[in-house]
Amino acid sequence: MSFQPPRRVLMGPGPSDVSERVLSALARPTIGHLDPAFVAFMDELKDLLRFAFRTKNELTFPVSGPGTAGMETCIMNLVEPGDTVVVAVNGVFGGRLAEMIERVGGKAVRVTESWGRPVDPAKIEAALKQHPEAKLVAFVHGETSTGARSDVEPLVKIAHAHGALALVDAVTTLGGCALEVDAWDVDAAYSGSQKCLSAPPGLSPVTFGPRAIKKIESRRSPVPSWFLDLRLVMAYWGGGAKRTYHHTAPINALYGLHESLLILKEEGLERAWERHQKHHLALAKGLDTLGLGLFVEESARLPQLNAVSVPAGVDEAQVRRRLLEEHDVEIGAAYSELAGKIWRVGLMGHSSRVENIVYFLDSLETVLGKPSQRSAEVARKVLS
Amino acid sequence: MSFQPPRRVLMGPGPSDVSERVLSALARPTIGHLDPAFVAFMDELKDLLRFAFRTKNELTFPVSGPGTAGMETCIMNLVEPGDTVVVAVNGVFGGRLAEMIERVGGKAVRVTESWGRPVDPAKIEAALKQHPEAKLVAFVHGETSTGARSDVEPLVKIAHAHGALALVDAVTTLGGCALEVDAWDVDAAYSGSQKCLSAPPGLSPVTFGPRAIKKIESRRSPVPSWFLDLRLVMAYWGGGAKRTYHHTAPINALYGLHESLLILKEEGLERAWERHQKHHLALAKGLDTLGLGLFVEESARLPQLNAVSVPAGVDEAQVRRRLLEEHDVEIGAAYSELAGKIWRVGLMGHSSRVENIVYFLDSLETVLGKPSQRSAEVARKVLS
Repeated sequence: MSFQPPRRVLMGPGPSDVSERVLSALARPTIGHLDPAFVAFMDELKDLLRFAFRTKNELTFPVSGPGTAGMETCIMNLVEPGDTVVVAVNGVFGGRLAEMIERVGGKAVRVTESWGRPVDPAKIEAALKQHPEAKLVAFVHGETSTGARSDVEPLVKIAHAHGALALVDAVTTLGGCALEVDAWDVDAAYSGSQKCLSAPPGLSPVTFGPRAIKKIESRRSPVPSWFLDLRLVMAYWGGGAKRTYHHTAPINALYGLHESLLILKEEGLERAWERHQKHHLALAKGLDTLGLGLFVEESARLPQLNAVSVPAGVDEAQVRRRLLEEHDVEIGAAYSELAGKIWRVGLMGHSSRVENIVYFLDSLETVLGKPSQRSAEVARKVLS
Repeated sequence: MSFQPPRRVLMGPGPSDVSERVLSALARPTIGHLDPAFVAFMDELKDLLRFAFRTKNELTFPVSGPGTAGMETCIMNLVEPGDTVVVAVNGVFGGRLAEMIERVGGKAVRVTESWGRPVDPAKIEAALKQHPEAKLVAFVHGETSTGARSDVEPLVKIAHAHGALALVDAVTTLGGCALEVDAWDVDAAYSGSQKCLSAPPGLSPVTFGPRAIKKIESRRSPVPSWFLDLRLVMAYWGGGAKRTYHHTAPINALYGLHESLLILKEEGLERAWERHQKHHLALAKGLDTLGLGLFVEESARLPQLNAVSVPAGVDEAQVRRRLLEEHDVEIGAAYSELAGKIWRVGLMGHSSRVENIVYFLDSLETVLGKPSQRSAEVARKVLS
């Protein structure tokens, strides 16, 4: 029988709600990946990604796989066996970066930080002083596992001052808060389609600046993956008229990403950032009414991913289950050392709407057995 | 501006035409990849893939990337540094397999064959005698670059007789001609969503039998890719209630694949194979009327991919361009040593319909300047 998914309100760590406009773009007729009409479309899509990343980088395109494939594209191409990489680990995704570095034979120098805290530039600098041979600094802009935002620009400056490149995980941040690839001099970044862009999961936008390309072009060893080898992928995505076949692009998924980027462009990037921030403040105020606090210190909070501290005595899994089963609202659990301690409440892209905030707070009141706290009304006031 | 793709008749080497039913499945609401409703859907999808592969293999699921990612999943997990692999190279994709083997540190023993010819079991046997240390035999069932079908069962028998596993590229064959993973004792196979399944490109169904799993579980070295590491992926796709997060699955693309497999199941697998064969014979007859022959010897022709010899004096690129621009029909060019010598005419999945055969032959008559040859009528007669 055909699968008819339930209608959910997606307020977890991603995927976020996908608009009707993007959903219907997915259903447009499939055409060939070498069709001249598709080739023109690819150029437009790359331009839209440059707009979202705030970059002029020629090598900007969506990897044909989820965010993890984009992350691995960056590591596989930028790291060679024996290379030292300083990698900040303040959550799940920093840890994943370190694992990927080691799998390709790199030496990962882990700079750890408590989960929920941003990356500390002083510790990165100390690691670079101890490892002057380091060729790359890798870190996560917005840690989806904790809700903490790190400050990109000083970290990039420190990397460059020590002769290393800077790789930024922008999976959760692209489109949801300030990210300036060119102005901050980021060498490479990757993201995902299913967070603040609000396209379905399955694509990973990436961008590479001149230093990163130089590193890739001067590699002495082949990239272990044929699928993710940028020298091959570039001939397809960057080939212009001389485009050569590499793999078959996921045509319909790309229609969806293109439409989601158009929506972002119509709103304006800065306005989208402001919307995420405003809605985050409204949510925080509403939660406060319910006696719920945010786990991350104020200066480092991601507006698009709110880590809500679970109050003592509350069965956090039951709250999530009841929100889903009785109200069709999905929020996220936490992993590892934060498991059971926080809920992850996403306000990403198309999910960052006043309707969602009101409906979530009202549902949460019911589930927590605190009806008529009027948290939704309080949140609305912040927005008016 | 929203992208409005042209409507094409897709008769190249893939993607094939995607039905309205599959397109509308893509546009259903996105839900979370850990939603209980999605978890139940994943189990159904795996069952449908087992049906298509004719296997009971527990480890059967779609890799979150195009066919190339499925190919690399197999190579990365089944080959360790120093392993010898006998790989048949009778077209582009055999060559790609060999490259992937070498990138992960394997030793690829290439058994070459002229393009357009099937893999010769005697040559594979000779290579295994010369390389008794070989742990794997890898070959392509249906070479999309040439239109040749190889005989899987004897090749698997030879591999096993020499203590090697057998890996089969079924990208173009799954759903389009007989493929019996269990009955033929295939150890691992991968396919693509955009050929005879007629879902959009971007997913790669894979299946692994007990010997393959034993090999994976006894690896001494980590898989170089974190994204494609089956030990991690298995915990997600095979984890049941204890499912652990690995990467975010491409939800909407999976809706489409599920729907395409339902359509295949409704038709019946053997009936789908027969349809492909019947339509292939009709096309061949129609082409014959126009004086056009098939490049591959009769016994090795893939019904779903017809390599048509380009007649002397015909500008093959212009024919393709006019078919596309004037008739919205896409057919494929050829690569490398076959470039300019053949057209690749696909009759895959939803594209394998009498309407497409008639429209293509009629359009081709016009483009070749041979109107009123009534090739379409001849083709129709074969089908009546």
